[in-house]
Amino acid sequence: MRNTFGTNVTVTLFGESHGPEIGCVVDGLAPGLHVNEDFIAAQLALRRPMGRISTARVEPDPFRIVSGVYQGRTTGTPLCILIPNTQARSEDYVNLKTTPRPGHADYTGSVKYRGFGDPRGGGHFSGRLTAPLVAAGAIAIGALRSRGVTIGTHIARLAGIADRPFDDLGEDVARLGSLPFAVLDEAAGEKMRAAIETAAKDGDSVGGILESAVLGLPAGLGEPWFDTMEGLLSHALFSIPAVKAVEFGDGFGLAEGRGSETNDPFRMEAGRVVTASNHNGGVNGGLTNGMPLIFRTAVKPTPSIGLPQQTVDLSAGENVELTLTGRHDPCIVHRARVVQDSLTALVLLDLIQPL
Amino acid sequence: MRNTFGTNVTVTLFGESHGPEIGCVVDGLAPGLHVNEDFIAAQLALRRPMGRISTARVEPDPFRIVSGVYQGRTTGTPLCILIPNTQARSEDYVNLKTTPRPGHADYTGSVKYRGFGDPRGGGHFSGRLTAPLVAAGAIAIGALRSRGVTIGTHIARLAGIADRPFDDLGEDVARLGSLPFAVLDEAAGEKMRAAIETAAKDGDSVGGILESAVLGLPAGLGEPWFDTMEGLLSHALFSIPAVKAVEFGDGFGLAEGRGSETNDPFRMEAGRVVTASNHNGGVNGGLTNGMPLIFRTAVKPTPSIGLPQQTVDLSAGENVELTLTGRHDPCIVHRARVVQDSLTALVLLDLIQPL
Amino acid sequence: MRNTFGTNVTVTLFGESHGPEIGCVVDGLAPGLHVNEDFIAAQLALRRPMGRISTARVEPDPFRIVSGVYQGRTTGTPLCILIPNTQARSEDYVNLKTTPRPGHADYTGSVKYRGFGDPRGGGHFSGRLTAPLVAAGAIAIGALRSRGVTIGTHIARLAGIADRPFDDLGEDVARLGSLPFAVLDEAAGEKMRAAIETAAKDGDSVGGILESAVLGLPAGLGEPWFDTMEGLLSHALFSIPAVKAVEFGDGFGLAEGRGSETNDPFRMEAGRVVTASNHNGGVNGGLTNGMPLIFRTAVKPTPSIGLPQQTVDLSAGENVELTLTGRHDPCIVHRARVVQDSLTALVLLDLIQPL
Amino acid sequence: MRNTFGTNVTVTLFGESHGPEIGCVVDGLAPGLHVNEDFIAAQLALRRPMGRISTARVEPDPFRIVSGVYQGRTTGTPLCILIPNTQARSEDYVNLKTTPRPGHADYTGSVKYRGFGDPRGGGHFSGRLTAPLVAAGAIAIGALRSRGVTIGTHIARLAGIADRPFDDLGEDVARLGSLPFAVLDEAAGEKMRAAIETAAKDGDSVGGILESAVLGLPAGLGEPWFDTMEGLLSHALFSIPAVKAVEFGDGFGLAEGRGSETNDPFRMEAGRVVTASNHNGGVNGGLTNGMPLIFRTAVKPTPSIGLPQQTVDLSAGENVELTLTGRHDPCIVHRARVVQDSLTALVLLDLIQPL
Repeated sequence: MRNTFGTNVTVTLFGESHGPEIGCVVDGLAPGLHVNEDFIAAQLALRRPMGRISTARVEPDPFRIVSGVYQGRTTGTPLCILIPNTQARSEDYVNLKTTPRPGHADYTGSVKYRGFGDPRGGGHFSGRLTAPLVAAGAIAIGALRSRGVTIGTHIARLAGIADRPFDDLGEDVARLGSLPFAVLDEAAGEKMRAAIETAAKDGDSVGGILESAVLGLPAGLGEPWFDTMEGLLSHALFSIPAVKAVEFGDGFGLAEGRGSETNDPFRMEAGRVVTASNHNGGVNGGLTNGMPLIFRTAVKPTPSIGLPQQTVDLSAGENVELTLTGRHDPCIVHRARVVQDSLTALVLLDLIQPL
Repeated sequence: MRNTFGTNVTVTLFGESHGPEIGCVVDGLAPGLHVNEDFIAAQLALRRPMGRISTARVEPDPFRIVSGVYQGRTTGTPLCILIPNTQARSEDYVNLKTTPRPGHADYTGSVKYRGFGDPRGGGHFSGRLTAPLVAAGAIAIGALRSRGVTIGTHIARLAGIADRPFDDLGEDVARLGSLPFAVLDEAAGEKMRAAIETAAKDGDSVGGILESAVLGLPAGLGEPWFDTMEGLLSHALFSIPAVKAVEFGDGFGLAEGRGSETNDPFRMEAGRVVTASNHNGGVNGGLTNGMPLIFRTAVKPTPSIGLPQQTVDLSAGENVELTLTGRHDPCIVHRARVVQDSLTALVLLDLIQPL
Repeated sequence: MRNTFGTNVTVTLFGESHGPEIGCVVDGLAPGLHVNEDFIAAQLALRRPMGRISTARVEPDPFRIVSGVYQGRTTGTPLCILIPNTQARSEDYVNLKTTPRPGHADYTGSVKYRGFGDPRGGGHFSGRLTAPLVAAGAIAIGALRSRGVTIGTHIARLAGIADRPFDDLGEDVARLGSLPFAVLDEAAGEKMRAAIETAAKDGDSVGGILESAVLGLPAGLGEPWFDTMEGLLSHALFSIPAVKAVEFGDGFGLAEGRGSETNDPFRMEAGRVVTASNHNGGVNGGLTNGMPLIFRTAVKPTPSIGLPQQTVDLSAGENVELTLTGRHDPCIVHRARVVQDSLTALVLLDLIQPL
Repeated sequence: MRNTFGTNVTVTLFGESHGPEIGCVVDGLAPGLHVNEDFIAAQLALRRPMGRISTARVEPDPFRIVSGVYQGRTTGTPLCILIPNTQARSEDYVNLKTTPRPGHADYTGSVKYRGFGDPRGGGHFSGRLTAPLVAAGAIAIGALRSRGVTIGTHIARLAGIADRPFDDLGEDVARLGSLPFAVLDEAAGEKMRAAIETAAKDGDSVGGILESAVLGLPAGLGEPWFDTMEGLLSHALFSIPAVKAVEFGDGFGLAEGRGSETNDPFRMEAGRVVTASNHNGGVNGGLTNGMPLIFRTAVKPTPSIGLPQQTVDLSAGENVELTLTGRHDPCIVHRARVVQDSLTALVLLDLIQPL
């Protein structure tokens, strides 16, 4: 199933960057869930570009829910969300069909779709398609909250600048939700924004690392093989444009230690089984163990940069230089954060709802 | 679908560590593929434990193919592989049902399966279940080779010791296939084996990093959303017991650079589109770009160690100390290598076969 | 997957009878297929109600394709079709939530969706949802035609009146496509329409049998188990509201004969394997045999009738009499025909496209 | 997914008629279900051939459960059942690869699998593959019983001879379970067996109609579109070799009536919503309504007959006459009964278990 994921709660994504509308169908939602349109709008606002990084223009995408909601609650039948496209400058992109941008899907997409893809604005590959995912994720986040599950993601690194690590997870996760630029240490955030502006002035771009924590999950979610918690989440997280790596708990750091250091000892706490450390990020044998689920993704620098780049002219079969025109994000890490929350929520709701 | 993965070529896994037989069903294989039982046996031998690391006892698991093969070729109908279990010392594991091993699935599995799971040898969670996956993978590796696709994996790090990086990929990948301890630099390999022996003497364990290269893939494999090449592969790779992280191309390193450094410029080479560098590991926008597919996994130290550990007695609800008896792998990185090759081959065959 | 069907070419359906828009997402279409919007409009016109049966108001539903088509051809990415709803008299339906109509989904839907379903016009259960299926089916019918596969369905029986049987299949199938009232014998069609008008005057409704033929299919489509050709088609055909039975070839008639009568002998004809008879409807062992695929569905009388009926008041827990107001179809057999063609085309395209 | 069906509880079937073993993997069973091996053996006995029809040799197939059961209960992990093949006369079938039997899958299978299929005994198409389905179904029947759901199937017609209709459904269903020749009217059963013997003497075969009733189902099972109760069941039932038609409730008979006759009025009975009649077979709008689920399948006469038949020689490309040697079932209706119960139970458990 190409553009669909999930088993119990499924999401089917459609649309092109410059088509009339983009959207998604969320199927399998339990009937009776409250649908908070203000929260959807707020989440979409977190995803939108921020002028010169520092100000968040809260002009939400004018989404419409055309099915699956009646009198403010889910009906249990498929919920379709539509978001109109209003951008107009399609001519900027026409030549990308023959001179593919390095680091983008222009070339690979043209092979896969044999030249029939919509080239305007990246077509179906556009990061704009994350908007309906954020809208769908907002519903999932709401459904998880009503079951005591909360998600928080911060910019752990950006352009080499580190945020402070998670500390009091309950407080940190609660704070992160509504921050337009999600850092735990505001001084680090200032430096990160400055680094983005510097990169922008240079016609270049920067990347970073997003770290997420999920609190309140029951133990036993996931499967021993194939549909492990790590496998299910990473499968979805690689749909965030520019994500190239996923690690759980101490991740690559685990490769360096010894078993006596990386095993998380169990102990009883207030009648409940907990672990004394959390090197495994809340997952043992592919299943959640009831501790906070911790994971990180690497977001590469935005491939669209202003500097001239080497590429090929596919029709002439020769090397050419490409200089992109138009405005481009010098960094998408801070915008990708809400997409990470959204996909995480959709994966987890898929597992939790049947319980 | 719990224990099944794939769309066109699917694998369904079954069995418990101490049951009479374990196995898998591979469905959707094209009819007429040659099935090389010697190669399956050789791959299974690579997965088996090596006494004191240095000697590979080539005593292959006595697998049987009970369906889907006729006169040495696939029939196109489901292929079932069975491998008998011969281990006998189930009594070692009985108390793990109430005193779960840290870092293992004993606790999470008992929650998920409400105490009804087979506790002997880890039951369905046992690493032994990778044997049928290796057998299935051997068939997939053979099918890919006949289409010019080859896979090689080396131990890039182990206990802090680094192998040399990939150099001439064609040569390196060709060499790695049959090495019992898959390093490119044999001197590094010596040090790694010594580190494993030291850990074993200490009653402890070590982990490492496996790096894979896949050569000969066509461009355009994967999907823009959800079933991205990275998403499909990582989903499967997290089924390798102890894998906690997956990265493609420069992976987490990409987060530190700038777009002008991490974009891979396109150029024409002998009438074919290639990239001048491969920071993206052969994947752009979720689709293969025809360059070598490069990825790494982090394998944590084996959780079963000889040192005493803190855990809980689930029936009494109190903290206890656990000392494991019996023999345990002080490292599974070198054995996990062939599992990584196998799962990779199965994921890729699923995508390539319909072409 | 609830509202999605298909494996290679999938359809995801959404919408409620009185919501703003209904639609579907068709994913997996090969890139480059011509999309003929006039043909979609013509097919939708065949599905629309006909005033007093005899006149076909060709006022097509104003559908919009919002993704997956660029410059008149499929892009290979998900194609979303939207159809606005314009009906307004929702108040007619409000009390059906507590006094369910016999033969309808009002009661069963209210149990399944725990009372949260949209009750207006039958909500997601409405026959109106077949409109997007017909639009999607029109694309599939076009794709099949370009591969030499054609589908024709006639009203084999209606209110006890029989159409003539299929005779020259090539001619019959070619004629049926654009007929607004699909009978092979126009005199029988006159009687059928008269029977519908009589039933309407009586405040009652009638049913019938739809018989389909598919020509030009290759041999070997389907699977030996579970995804047999009969199983795949029947699974989809029962989505046509009011269909309660499906039979292939001689169907229930086969139960009465002997093997020597019901086996279809093979013979060579112009270098091709054919069968001398077609009692099995073009399917042997779950797979197409290259002969015409023949099947019939039984369409029950429309459950919405004007006569008073016995039902219950779910809130009061007591028996009540229900008299429906508003206009209702006295027969949907002739309208269901194009839905049968559409679902058949979608099922077959799913199987044929990968070839 | 070719040889797998189900969503929550899945069955994957494998094996060939003359391979060493056939079997299936049942995944997703709830942990803790009792597995009654005697009942499995008894169900397998009902499926076995009966010498001269009248005597049931209770020599059960020696099945083995190799995974998914521990101490007599399901573990929740995949359950694999294996049944060895002991038949030996493979030489009887070798020439069927080039001279396909009319009415069988020999020709269509050879096209689909491009000549690589196992031709012995029909290979993967063999009716013998229903044995593991019956074993799996026995577990599902047991799981349904523990939730108050029972299934009964009788031979409603055979060679034109009618059994009496269902009367007191509770009593009838209870009686049918263990009958080796499942008729409600033993006098009709005598005539049916005589008809089978007559057909056998003539070198011919007969077919019939199987009618099932399922009691105790909750209302609301199924989906409005695609996964309707009728669609899910028919999809599975067409896997019974020789089934060519499926109808629910009054089925094709519904096409002849008027809505006022075929609608089932609702009424309250002991505080519960019931229907006064059951023309719709317990399904409204694709969902169960809590009344008995009633359906019928048409089983065609066994295609393997002793009389000479016309077929083709595929290698020579010419018409030939074929006379089958060996013993063949003159009727499989009575044996198919337990397969119908089994597949029905598996489909229903898939829907009920998550509740």
